[in-house]
Parts: sequence; C-alpha cells; structure tokens
Amino acid sequence: MKIIVLKFGGTSVGTLSKITKVAKVIASYAKKKYKVIVVSSAMSGVTNQLLLKTKKISQNFPNEEKDVILSTGEQISCALIAGKLNLLGYKSRSWLGWQLPIITRGKYSSSRIIKIQKTKIIKYLKSGGIPIVTGFQGINSDFRITTLERGGSDTSAILCAKFFNAKKCIIYTDVEGVYTTDPNLTKSAKKINKISYEEMLEMASLGAKVMQPASIQEARLNRIEIDVKSTFSKKSGTTITKKRNITGKNIIRGISFTKNDAKLTLLGVKDKPGIAASIFKPLYENSINVDMVVQNISAGSKETDLTFTIKLEDLYKTRKLLENNKSINFRKLIVNKNVSKVSIVGVGMITTPGVSYRMFRALAKKKINIEVISTSEIKISVLINKKNLKKSVEILHQEFKLSSSL
Amino acid sequence: MKIIVLKFGGTSVGTLSKITKVAKVIASYAKKKYKVIVVSSAMSGVTNQLLLKTKKISQNFPNEEKDVILSTGEQISCALIAGKLNLLGYKSRSWLGWQLPIITRGKYSSSRIIKIQKTKIIKYLKSGGIPIVTGFQGINSDFRITTLERGGSDTSAILCAKFFNAKKCIIYTDVEGVYTTDPNLTKSAKKINKISYEEMLEMASLGAKVMQPASIQEARLNRIEIDVKSTFSKKSGTTITKKRNITGKNIIRGISFTKNDAKLTLLGVKDKPGIAASIFKPLYENSINVDMVVQNISAGSKETDLTFTIKLEDLYKTRKLLENNKSINFRKLIVNKNVSKVSIVGVGMITTPGVSYRMFRALAKKKINIEVISTSEIKISVLINKKNLKKSVEILHQEFKLSSSL
Repeated sequence: MKIIVLKFGGTSVGTLSKITKVAKVIASYAKKKYKVIVVSSAMSGVTNQLLLKTKKISQNFPNEEKDVILSTGEQISCALIAGKLNLLGYKSRSWLGWQLPIITRGKYSSSRIIKIQKTKIIKYLKSGGIPIVTGFQGINSDFRITTLERGGSDTSAILCAKFFNAKKCIIYTDVEGVYTTDPNLTKSAKKINKISYEEMLEMASLGAKVMQPASIQEARLNRIEIDVKSTFSKKSGTTITKKRNITGKNIIRGISFTKNDAKLTLLGVKDKPGIAASIFKPLYENSINVDMVVQNISAGSKETDLTFTIKLEDLYKTRKLLENNKSINFRKLIVNKNVSKVSIVGVGMITTPGVSYRMFRALAKKKINIEVISTSEIKISVLINKKNLKKSVEILHQEFKLSSSL
Repeated sequence: MKIIVLKFGGTSVGTLSKITKVAKVIASYAKKKYKVIVVSSAMSGVTNQLLLKTKKISQNFPNEEKDVILSTGEQISCALIAGKLNLLGYKSRSWLGWQLPIITRGKYSSSRIIKIQKTKIIKYLKSGGIPIVTGFQGINSDFRITTLERGGSDTSAILCAKFFNAKKCIIYTDVEGVYTTDPNLTKSAKKINKISYEEMLEMASLGAKVMQPASIQEARLNRIEIDVKSTFSKKSGTTITKKRNITGKNIIRGISFTKNDAKLTLLGVKDKPGIAASIFKPLYENSINVDMVVQNISAGSKETDLTFTIKLEDLYKTRKLLENNKSINFRKLIVNKNVSKVSIVGVGMITTPGVSYRMFRALAKKKINIEVISTSEIKISVLINKKNLKKSVEILHQEFKLSSSL
C-alpha cells in the first residue's frame, strides 16, 4: 500500500475557507492513487483560547482535565475537514485519538506516543476511505485522553508515517519551507531545498519554528523523510533528510537568531567547588532554561565572574532566585536585556576548518562586538548587541554565500 | 449505594464563575454522603457556535462529523467542572460518552440512548470519585460519537438515574422551577410545587421550556421523580412526579401559551375523500408541524373550509407548498399572523366536568373571541388574537385560582 501522511498545521486550517483549501489539497493526493492519512492540528488560536478557559479557573488547573479540553481543538478541525471531503464526494471520516487508539505514556499534557494501533485505519484505507486523524493527542493505559507537548501534531504525523510505514510525510504549513534565515529580517534569505535532520534541529530550536524539534528528532531516529511546504502555494518546499543525502558546496546551511534573550553576569562570585551547580539548581527547579554559559576562572583569585543567558521572559523570576539564593555569594549582578544570539548552522563545518574564524572576522570587520561564544559540532553561536542583529545576519549570510544555490 | 443524579443546563455552566458555583452545589451533595453522578450540558451558546461552523461549510454538513464537533461542547464543560472540583479538594473527573460507554442507536444527530454501561462508574463512585458525565452524547455500534436531539442532556440525566437506579434526579437550571404560567407575562404566575409527568409534558411542549419533552417522557416511563430547581437559589423547586402523588385542590395546574403561531384557512376546498391527507402530506414531508386543525363539513355542499395552525417560522414554506400543491383545489387562502394559543393544563379536568365551560365563559366575559379550540384529556387550548394574550392568561389564572397554594 502506497501510504502518504499529510499534516496540516493550525494556520492551514485556521478558517473555514482554508479548510476547503486543505480538503482540495488532500483530494489531489487521493486522485493520484495514494492511500492518504491526514493528521491535523487545531484551528490556529483555538488551543490558546481553550487554555485560557482553564487558566481563568486556576493557574493550577489539573492537567488530566486540561487535556480533555485541549483535545477538542483537533476533534473539531478533523471533523470539519472530513465533512468537507464528504461534500466533495470523497469517503472520509475523523479518527479521534481514542478511536484508533493512539497509545501514549507519561504525564498528562506532555505524554509521548508509544504506539499507534493500525488495524482499523488499514481496514478503512483499504475500503477507500481517507482518515483524518487528530494530532497532538492519544489515550493512556487508564483509557483517558492525553496530549503531547505543544506543537505535538508534528510528532503525531511523523509517528503515523513510522507506524504505517508511509512512503512520505508532508508537513503543510503557512510558509514555503525552511529558509537560510528569517525572510522577515532580510530579503536575501533563501529557501533551502534540502536540509539534514541535524541542521534542522539546530535551526528549529534556535527559532526557525517551522516544526517542533521533538518531531524532527523522531523523524531522524526513524529515518523518515519530511517535505515541508505551503498549503497555499504550488511551489516545492524543503526536504528534511539524512546527512548523506545533502549535496551542494555550502558549508553553512542557515543562520538562526533569537531576539528575546537576556544576559546576566554575576561579578565577584566566591569561587568554590560546585558553585555553578549551586547557582543553576534553583533555575533548573523552576524550569528556567539557561542557554550560553561563560565562567572566567581567575588564576590565584578566590573570586570568579559568571555570565549566562536566559529567555527574557524568565528574567524577573531568575533575578529573584539569584538574589534569594543563600548558598551563593557575589558582589554584583549585571543584567543586559539588549542581546541577541546569532548562530550559523551546517553539517559541513565538521569537516571544514576555519569556519568560526571566518564568522568572527566577518563580524569584526563591521565592528560588531561578540559578547559570548558557544559552539556545537554543527553550530556556532555568538551573543551580540541586539541593535546589530540585522547587520550581523546579513554579513554572515553574505560571508557564507547563502544566497547562492542550495 | 445512595446515588443521586445532578444535571446542570447550559446557562448553569454558562461562564467560568458559574462553573465555580456549580462545583460548590455538587460539593454540598457530596458532603451529605450521597454518591453523586453529575451530567452537564455544554456552556450556553457553545452548541450553536459549533453548529454555525458546520453550517458555514455547508447547510448539508454530514451529521456523522457534526456530532463529533457538537460533542466537544459537553467535553469542555464537564472537564471544567471536574477540574474545579479537584481544586476544591474533591476527587472528580470527566467521563466522556465513549468512556463509560453510553450506547446509542439510531441516526446521527438524533440518536437514542439504549444502554449506559455501569461498571466503570460504579467502581469510580465506590472509590469516592464524583463522575462528571457528558450529556447529549454517546457512541454507536460503529464506535463513533453520536448526539441526541437538541436538549438531549436532560434525557442523558434521566437515563443515568434509570440505569444507576438513583434515588433522585435533580435538574438544575436558571429558573426556580415550573410556574403556573410565564412569570414574564404576568406577576400573578406562581411556582408549582408538584406537577405530574403528564401535565409537565403538556406544559413543556406548549412552551414552558424548562425540560426537553422527550426526557419527561423517559422519566414518566421509568417512574423517576425529578426535582427542577435553580442553580443560583436555595429555594425549593418543582417536583415532577406520578399523578397519584399530586394533591391539592386545583383542577388546573398551569397555563401555557404560544406567541409565534400562524393560522391558515383554505376557503372553498373541493371536498373529496382524502383531501385532508393531500393537504398535509407535503407539510409532513417538509417537517412542518401542523398543530390545531378544524374542518367545517358543510352538509350538502361539495366544498369545505379548512383551518389549521403552524409555527410562524414555517409560514413562507407552507404557503409555497399549498400554492404549488396540484392535488388540491381551493378558492382562497387566508393567513392570520396575529394569533396566540392559550392552553389550560391539569390532570384534574379528567374527573371534573365543566372546565371547558368555565374557560370559555371567563374569556367571553371579557369579550375575547375564540377562533379555534382543541382539547386533550388534560389540556384545553384556544386560539385567540395575539393582542388579547396577556389579558386571557390573567383571566384564566384568576378563574382557576392558580395564585393560591399549589
């Protein structure tokens, strides 16, 4: 059976007229004799509206019931799509998480799919039906509704592709694919034709936001090739695939950046073993994500300076936690809210020396000061003053020739 | 096990603050050592909003998927109630139709509950939990979501009371009970303490709108006593019970009325056997409900006049159907949009002669003309000019002493 999985994101099904468009896209694959499995998100904004209801009752609204509420978003969008396909003359129906079932494990509101029962869907496909499966949800061993992490519909789609052994998984969204950098920042941004899972992971977690990072990780583990493309355009999108399928001469594939970071520096921290752990433990316990970390080890001195970055939204809480932390001792806390992180990403840099040098030189030429540096195998990130963000991205885009064919 | 079923209507759960109130009402029963089963409707307005989505896609949106969409209304309200009860320290959870399951039969969007599986709920009750069960829905033998007729949450509650052998079924709503007539029309309207199923049925279908008629019929068949009371008041409500539990000297228990009827008269209909059937067949086929019917059989003549009433909203369609009906022949069609039907209801009238005479006399004294009369065992209805509605109801309310103790 030539199965294809099509996933539609919230903006793709955001209005009733868009649902009609989605139904037509689905129909075009059904006509090509594919067996189509559709996975849909909730209509855009709906999940947040539902979440707001629970928050208005309490910020501590129990997750068990929150999941029951949030899951209605996909229930509605899937039924609307199936209904529209019926009206267009296709056999189609909504399949809710519990109807297959999609089996999950873990905590409510952040469950993981461990299995998708195939029998009923395979039977339905064989009968000529187009199943519209609810993303973002499943049931657990208590027969209760669970939801995945936010954006989990991508993962639902990838795992449908895995369990049904699909030939292809196409993620339909509101952008035409993955870009070398944010097209809203610079016109020189270019659509990438092919990108590796690893690069995409670095791009996604750094803010490219086309797909949920966990879903890309699932695709990577299961070697599922993904096409990302726009619901509203006929243009080809971006293929996310294995490293060895990536050709082309470019070392760097994309430049991502953050806009809402804050840099904190603790001056004159009394240095002793385990001091970093003492500083970061309360942050970890409060789910505050620490990103870049630099510690100046001052030889001979009993004091050290520690710099790290967090999301701007966590600043207030972080400050309180640091100031109330009795187990550490520091002279001064300096906060800088005007920072951005710019990262260059590419599997090519592993085998190509001098990439970081080229990055630093390009920035230095334009007198852009680098405040913090961090690197991984396929990524180099620098922290700069926010006012230099656009200029930096453009310089690096040019330096690594990202406007040329990808 | 001392089980009690509490049902909350749409207006009772219409806002998040009202849901808090509802949770407190539920808690008050749990404190009294009842085993409480709650059945809830969707938040008021929600079902209509959901319906509108399907209608915007198509007026012929398939019922199979419509039911999937509409069922989310109760899914949300029940989860909100359960969540709130958790926050108040009670063990509670939502139970969706498919989780019990509530088994239905019949067409989508107008299914009937044929069975409620008790096992899981009984186990949950025994564990000290308060189940919040979705009204208005169930699943069919295809494992798909079905909904009952609109207002079906009342029926869900009555059948919960039946299958769980509950001691009591309390319908919480936004009014304090069933009134002798509409309190908005006349201040003399009084709350009825006890009313028989039969009387309630006549009251409900005539416009009292406190409960869905089909649910009262279920209660009658299963001899389930119902209390109707307000979620927002401590006052006792109305008990709907068996005829023989009704005491009190009043022959008439209530006066109901319609405001939006139309009277049609076909003059000079060529009389032949089956002519009434020919006239009403197309109306029936178009789901137009014909209420009162009067035919003047004119001895010797080959012509007859036929008068009947319909809902005003059906007037346009009815007119077209009559004018395009080739199988009938009439001289003239007269339409009167200014009519109201006033009915007196009471099981007492079966054994009390002269009730109709008293009604007609009371109206005649005030020079109110009666256009059509129809009667059942426990109801007498008259059609009058709409402008006399208020006066008529007040006269009859006085004539049958409905302001005195009930």
